[in-house]
Amino acid sequence: MIIAVDTAGGDYAPHEVVKGAIKAAEEYKIEIALVGNKSILHVLARRHSKQVGLHIIDANQVISCDESPLKAVRSKPNSSIVVGMNLVRDGAADAFVSAGHTGAVLAAAFLNLGTIEGVERPALGSIINISPSAPALLVDAGANADCRPSHLLQFAQLGNIYAKKLFGTDSPRVGLLSNGEEETKGNRLIQESHQLLKESGLNFIGNVEGQEILNRTVDIIVTDGFTGNIVLKIMEGLSDSFINSLWQVGQFISKANRLQRKTSVRDIQVGSQSKRMDYREYGGACLLGVKGNVIVAHGRSQSKAIKNAIGLAKRTAEQNIPMLIREENLTREVTV
Amino acid sequence: MIIAVDTAGGDYAPHEVVKGAIKAAEEYKIEIALVGNKSILHVLARRHSKQVGLHIIDANQVISCDESPLKAVRSKPNSSIVVGMNLVRDGAADAFVSAGHTGAVLAAAFLNLGTIEGVERPALGSIINISPSAPALLVDAGANADCRPSHLLQFAQLGNIYAKKLFGTDSPRVGLLSNGEEETKGNRLIQESHQLLKESGLNFIGNVEGQEILNRTVDIIVTDGFTGNIVLKIMEGLSDSFINSLWQVGQFISKANRLQRKTSVRDIQVGSQSKRMDYREYGGACLLGVKGNVIVAHGRSQSKAIKNAIGLAKRTAEQNIPMLIREENLTREVTV
Repeated sequence: MIIAVDTAGGDYAPHEVVKGAIKAAEEYKIEIALVGNKSILHVLARRHSKQVGLHIIDANQVISCDESPLKAVRSKPNSSIVVGMNLVRDGAADAFVSAGHTGAVLAAAFLNLGTIEGVERPALGSIINISPSAPALLVDAGANADCRPSHLLQFAQLGNIYAKKLFGTDSPRVGLLSNGEEETKGNRLIQESHQLLKESGLNFIGNVEGQEILNRTVDIIVTDGFTGNIVLKIMEGLSDSFINSLWQVGQFISKANRLQRKTSVRDIQVGSQSKRMDYREYGGACLLGVKGNVIVAHGRSQSKAIKNAIGLAKRTAEQNIPMLIREENLTREVTV
Repeated sequence: MIIAVDTAGGDYAPHEVVKGAIKAAEEYKIEIALVGNKSILHVLARRHSKQVGLHIIDANQVISCDESPLKAVRSKPNSSIVVGMNLVRDGAADAFVSAGHTGAVLAAAFLNLGTIEGVERPALGSIINISPSAPALLVDAGANADCRPSHLLQFAQLGNIYAKKLFGTDSPRVGLLSNGEEETKGNRLIQESHQLLKESGLNFIGNVEGQEILNRTVDIIVTDGFTGNIVLKIMEGLSDSFINSLWQVGQFISKANRLQRKTSVRDIQVGSQSKRMDYREYGGACLLGVKGNVIVAHGRSQSKAIKNAIGLAKRTAEQNIPMLIREENLTREVTV
């Protein structure tokens, strides 16, 4: 398996991206195609003793965060995002991971990979794992700001295919994010989507509120990309804030422990708590509905998050999600 | 000052509500009108030694959470929500606090108090205080699921009047909740609202993302009631989850400290951290735009949250926010 990695994207590119990619190559026993400035990548790769399974693919253009996605993708054919995406399109890589400009990654995927037949709108499926027990999938996590009810139905169907494989559950519980549990709650989009989901044949458990995401009563949370993105960022922001607090508490305890030469059971407790809520543990969001495996990593990804995003790309590619989506033939159901 | 309190509303009614109301009467030196079942209230009030400033107003009907708001308000004139609201309408109370059915409280306020001239849609202004430094106001926190751009402009104007008095700032910074900072980000509602806010004369700082709520770069966060309600519940859910974690860590430390007879600096650290993020500290949301002071408390309010909601009602009533809103004459600006 070969995973292409955008080494020019994200706040910590290229150093942390390369570091994470090399870790991933070692840990997951896969090949990595580092996409970016060839000469820089050669220098960076040389620093690491083990270079087994590393390929360097030159891409001398960079798409920066303030560029218009479509325009940037069209005008920069040698950008790391476009070159990496084309490796997937041409079958030279099994998946593409980027922590770069999300809009540009989506645009490159739409334009260069294309949408699977029957899919109206590809959507970002983001794994959230703030609950104590197990992860849930949030779709759409930000690809589509304005949605129709039929889009939300498809997000549920796409999420259903993905969650089955990712979580190993036969019939994932689908919840519709709303401002109240009752069927009559929600804005018009949610009320109409609720009716479509009821008749969808999915394991639809009804509307879910924010706290249920955390209490883990649901495997798939369906929402429009505007709400989904806001929710995701607030969860990340709060987690960051909590992790900082826990870290402070942890520091205090560690210090006390060191002074007393005690085993640090407490540190472990603080550690597992913060790990649970840390987005860095879950790597990234999968773009569902395009003809290829694309993982959008967090812009602030450091090596650990990049490594985990590559791990997610590997799992996604192994399951061949695009093929499963094609086989599901969503066209029929959408016309309902 | 007399604050009317719905003793039949909320998960912990009537005991915790009465307890919180009595605490508030003592702490804030105000009079309280307990609205609910007369005989129960007499028994509950008698348990407390200090009964100075307590009035009991009989209301023998209860609106439960699964009832249709408008229907319930119309068919139950002797419910605690309707009786309490009418005390404000008739000038017998300066404000009304309820932890009951939010929809019914809103409906009773619309019907029995009425909307201030020029206000298209009253909105819930909820104080959030998860950031380390100071609180921010989220408007609309849940009164209007479907909104037009002119509504969001008014939410900003209503919030501006309230935040000035509440936070004591001359020119509160207004941010529009979106999925990206750039003016072009957001769904159609947000993009159009952005343009109205730019020309509003308010201290509009542009779009804000979830993390900015936490980093406290803004005093007022404007959003539609659907998104606002979801955001609020997720923040509360996460805070609860985090408070539990801190509590667990705190318990562990306390135990260790007790064994070692040490002062509990660490407990204090954990304590202040959790207090900062606890919605119980901030009491409730103010319904902005109706002809009276109405505070919607959290359904899970226990005595402390009720006491704080009454404190917020007192501060709100002292500032006479409805009069300030009327004087602002919002009609003119909305026609822009």
